[in-house]
Amino acid sequence: MSAKFDRLKEIVQQLNRYEMLNELLYWDMRTIMPGEGFDAHADVTDYISTESFRLGNSDELFELLRDISEPGEWEALDDNWKFIVTKMREDQERSRRIPEEVFRRAVAITTESERAWEEAKEASDFSVFAPHLEKMIEVQKEIKSYSHPEMEIYDALLDDYEKGMDSATIDRIFSELRDGLVPLVHSILAVKQPEDPRFSRPCDVNAQKEVQKLLLTYIGFDWNKGTTSESVHPFTLTVSGGTDVRITNHFHETNAIDGLFSAIHEGGHAIFEQNIAPAIANTPAGGCDYLGIHESQSRFFENILGRNINFWRPIYPEVQKLLPAFADISLEDFAREINHVRAGMIRTMSDEVTYCLHVILRYEVEKAIFREGVPVSELPALWNRKMKEYLGVVPQNDAEGILQDMHWSDGSFGYFPTYLLGSIYDGMFLDAMQADLGSVDTLLAEGRIGEIRAWLTEKIHRFGSLRCPKEVLKAVCGREATAEPLLRYFREKYSEFYPIG
Amino acid sequence: MSAKFDRLKEIVQQLNRYEMLNELLYWDMRTIMPGEGFDAHADVTDYISTESFRLGNSDELFELLRDISEPGEWEALDDNWKFIVTKMREDQERSRRIPEEVFRRAVAITTESERAWEEAKEASDFSVFAPHLEKMIEVQKEIKSYSHPEMEIYDALLDDYEKGMDSATIDRIFSELRDGLVPLVHSILAVKQPEDPRFSRPCDVNAQKEVQKLLLTYIGFDWNKGTTSESVHPFTLTVSGGTDVRITNHFHETNAIDGLFSAIHEGGHAIFEQNIAPAIANTPAGGCDYLGIHESQSRFFENILGRNINFWRPIYPEVQKLLPAFADISLEDFAREINHVRAGMIRTMSDEVTYCLHVILRYEVEKAIFREGVPVSELPALWNRKMKEYLGVVPQNDAEGILQDMHWSDGSFGYFPTYLLGSIYDGMFLDAMQADLGSVDTLLAEGRIGEIRAWLTEKIHRFGSLRCPKEVLKAVCGREATAEPLLRYFREKYSEFYPIG
Repeated sequence: MSAKFDRLKEIVQQLNRYEMLNELLYWDMRTIMPGEGFDAHADVTDYISTESFRLGNSDELFELLRDISEPGEWEALDDNWKFIVTKMREDQERSRRIPEEVFRRAVAITTESERAWEEAKEASDFSVFAPHLEKMIEVQKEIKSYSHPEMEIYDALLDDYEKGMDSATIDRIFSELRDGLVPLVHSILAVKQPEDPRFSRPCDVNAQKEVQKLLLTYIGFDWNKGTTSESVHPFTLTVSGGTDVRITNHFHETNAIDGLFSAIHEGGHAIFEQNIAPAIANTPAGGCDYLGIHESQSRFFENILGRNINFWRPIYPEVQKLLPAFADISLEDFAREINHVRAGMIRTMSDEVTYCLHVILRYEVEKAIFREGVPVSELPALWNRKMKEYLGVVPQNDAEGILQDMHWSDGSFGYFPTYLLGSIYDGMFLDAMQADLGSVDTLLAEGRIGEIRAWLTEKIHRFGSLRCPKEVLKAVCGREATAEPLLRYFREKYSEFYPIG
Repeated sequence: MSAKFDRLKEIVQQLNRYEMLNELLYWDMRTIMPGEGFDAHADVTDYISTESFRLGNSDELFELLRDISEPGEWEALDDNWKFIVTKMREDQERSRRIPEEVFRRAVAITTESERAWEEAKEASDFSVFAPHLEKMIEVQKEIKSYSHPEMEIYDALLDDYEKGMDSATIDRIFSELRDGLVPLVHSILAVKQPEDPRFSRPCDVNAQKEVQKLLLTYIGFDWNKGTTSESVHPFTLTVSGGTDVRITNHFHETNAIDGLFSAIHEGGHAIFEQNIAPAIANTPAGGCDYLGIHESQSRFFENILGRNINFWRPIYPEVQKLLPAFADISLEDFAREINHVRAGMIRTMSDEVTYCLHVILRYEVEKAIFREGVPVSELPALWNRKMKEYLGVVPQNDAEGILQDMHWSDGSFGYFPTYLLGSIYDGMFLDAMQADLGSVDTLLAEGRIGEIRAWLTEKIHRFGSLRCPKEVLKAVCGREATAEPLLRYFREKYSEFYPIG
């Protein structure tokens, strides 16, 4: 090992320490910090972020990465480190091209914009948020013009969250899905499935926590490498790679199902992070930077497995014991409820099927902004038109329409599509898995979910960020991205619940 | 403000950030971290401690403190900063005199010693721990000979935990107390109060947590500035001075009283830390470095207030509602139980009265070690002789005798006396408080505990470390340290519960 490589490993370790501290500060802030602790947390987070930014963008690191990429040094690196050095160089070069003035301006605009979005949502008045959204769009364009000068702006935004999945690919698979899904959803909704009031009976929150424990253990969450807590919005967070991965949840007394599926969803994210190969954990190749791939794992557990009646066969009696409100609900009725398709306004509360259309709508609005230059003032009308077209309903106000998500308020354009990419990948993964392991229905019914988890680890988890999304699809499924398997899965599954021919 | 003073404030802020991060890492480790998260926590804690040690012992800080103490700079400081600069200089000078080799050796000896103590306690075999204890005694002597060359070794050890309370003073007040207490305890124990099995009925742990909430709120714990969690051993910890002070507890299903009094005890520590003046919070004068003074506040709430029947009058019905196992227990029976005096072996499980003798025993053993040079091999016999003399019982093995506490395994000699100093101060504070506010019985019975808390803040809390223990006693009580008020309090109180004439 050369002295330069040793120094690089030291810097990577130091950057990783800063990351660990920031994650821990965030975890604490969201789960247990008392109100007045905020200022000290903010000060120390700011300090750690500044130190990390300095080291990550330092000339020393720049020169080190350059020197290590030269013949003589380069061949001595193993494949993991070749990936890490390449990734760090690219990230650093993109980041160093952004003028500090632009970066600072973006931070200031974001603070204002987040505040304005909260106010606007509270007042259900898009006009309060509109001028901030305009500024946010402009500054994001400016940033990407520096960081990704070789890419069109919206592709650059997409690239940040799902490397290599450009809008040409997404256009193709999202249209394929939309064209098949809109008529399917319309037939399902025409059935008019009634609401079953048994599912809003109160359940003790401590009992729901016991069911969460059961579910997480069942799907393979490793309690030696993880823990749980509560927060306003559920999230998964890695304190140290592969050894300390945590999830939060939020429980509602009269909606136990929501909390249970959040637990499975976050559990899926956490199982991914817990099973990244130790050789790359706590390096820039550990963790998974591709949000679509990450989301594919949470949604595989939540939807492909969790919304399959067979998932519940081995554990439903135990769930009923813990939640007396479910004692008189048959497994079949439970399965029908967790696959109940509704034409709702709110993405985060929507079912597995209509969720896709909520995301396609947002993707199309983002393209309208960045590619077609549609003015901000016209976006609410565009949103509402698309809701009518895809789901047959129209928001009564901005709060349940265009203001519902916070993503745009902090500049996360290009983030939404990753949610749906995750589900599209899941359709493909399901095909590949069944080709290897046989029927997932059978595996689940026989309580062999551990084999499913092991397959996902072998094929996906252990690689962390080493393979970009297109490489994952090629390696695991042997084909290009396609929505066909997901669409087929929807058609087969929902024809069992709904008389849609 | 001079440039030097500005720089000093920057360094103080930076040291405070390191402190905050280390406290947060510790909090997380003890309350929620999963098992495999340990290595990452240890690595980052080590990194932060090293950075903090470097800055705290840096030449830059040494020169800054020296320059600021010179005429021209010194007069410009306010009284708080004069105290802070003096304290930092003294701490730094003491610390810088310890050779790095000695410091490193002490760290290695401590690691070994802690492990040996755990093994020894597990095996109940003092001989496993004895050679490590010898090394620990020697290295502590060596450290103090560098850091406190002007003091006798045991006084130097005491000074670390309770500045200015030398063994001459402690000898005087501990003997005063011991001579009065041994006969009192013997008369109480002669009564042979029977055990009441109603107090070991199971109580739901979640219900106990509700009672904890009630108690903490009642005694004045500020939930905007603090929070609670669970850990193996209860503790209080400050994340950020005055704004984020946390306590933990440990609940036992069949011993609710233990958890409730732990909550009041830690609550007393936390209320102290929450009420330190903002001007000094997050400086070396904030927090309270004097463990006896700190302990006086936890014990005032736990014992002087919490074990007074009148404390419970306004809230006992609510406690009974939350804990059905107490529904048929009268307030009078409850008061008798929380003041039940037993001749037990274990300090941490002992009552308010015999606790004093457990501490005096340890103080005398420490003096035997450091002043009389009694060999380590003779300590268990000495321990057991004193147990017999003070409490009339003899440990059946080392685990319930000399091995019960971990303090000596990490070199904390001189720490034990601070527990009892806290109670002795409490007797004095009670006199001073009643002279100002009238009968504490009346205040408590009328639910006016807020006035008691406000008095403690006004007289003690807000000063943090600004006044050393002897100065606190002088300012608050107008007299030198004396055990007479505590002894009088014990005699009066326990003659109500026991027919001891």
